Amino acid sequence: MTGTAQSPIPADAADLLVSTALAHVATIGPDGAPQVTPVWFDWDGRYLRFSQTTRRQKYRNLRRDPRLAVSIVDPDNPYRSLEPRGVVARIEPDPDLAFVDKVTMKDLGQERDPSRNPPGEERVVVVVEPRRTTGMG
Amino acid sequence: MTGTAQSPIPADAADLLVSTALAHVATIGPDGAPQVTPVWFDWDGRYLRFSQTTRRQKYRNLRRDPRLAVSIVDPDNPYRSLEPRGVVARIEPDPDLAFVDKVTMKDLGQERDPSRNPPGEERVVVVVEPRRTTGMG
Repeated sequence: MTGTAQSPIPADAADLLVSTALAHVATIGPDGAPQVTPVWFDWDGRYLRFSQTTRRQKYRNLRRDPRLAVSIVDPDNPYRSLEPRGVVARIEPDPDLAFVDKVTMKDLGQERDPSRNPPGEERVVVVVEPRRTTGMG
Repeated sequence: MTGTAQSPIPADAADLLVSTALAHVATIGPDGAPQVTPVWFDWDGRYLRFSQTTRRQKYRNLRRDPRLAVSIVDPDNPYRSLEPRGVVARIEPDPDLAFVDKVTMKDLGQERDPSRNPPGEERVVVVVEPRRTTGMG
């Protein structure tokens, strides 16, 4: 698979980024060991965005080391997957929870994420710039 | 969630390990950046096993640094997930492809993985010992 000048995401795999699939995001922990958790995400053709609260380990990991890897599998074909790798381009606030509600509605219909607004935590949008992609299928 | 003396996997989440879910396995690449790819896996109550070929980057990563993290989401409930972390306990040969056929049959019925035996590569079984688990739901 090869990407375009604008994006390392292959054109024939871009549909996976607007599917209802979850993305499994891997980061590096404080001891250098990997961590991986599922997230809902959004894709605008250049950046992949996911919601996070500022107390989560993944958020703290990415503040320390902005490199991350993402694994996405086609919900309709388990042999088809996409693994973009990249860096955090920026972290944006999500004070009115508009972003987290948008990504969960994309994937779950009208349902709101029950963990959308944990007490004492702040929701942010992690904006990821994919730089390389591997995949199968 | 708390595990038992024998296993760090919580009893009420163990069903996820015998479901048809894929596991997304995160490793550390040669440059220290994370990598993550989907695999089918098996669970015997103590070890999580997945198939790998010896030319894959993930295999080479794990020979260098045996620490890994796994993300598994309930196929029937996207809010329910399990994230075991651990180390490679050992790597076993799979010369007659018995293991890869077993894990793909578990998840795909009778279908054989079309990439089960790539030319010039060797199939092995990566045996993972989970040491900590986080999760949701």
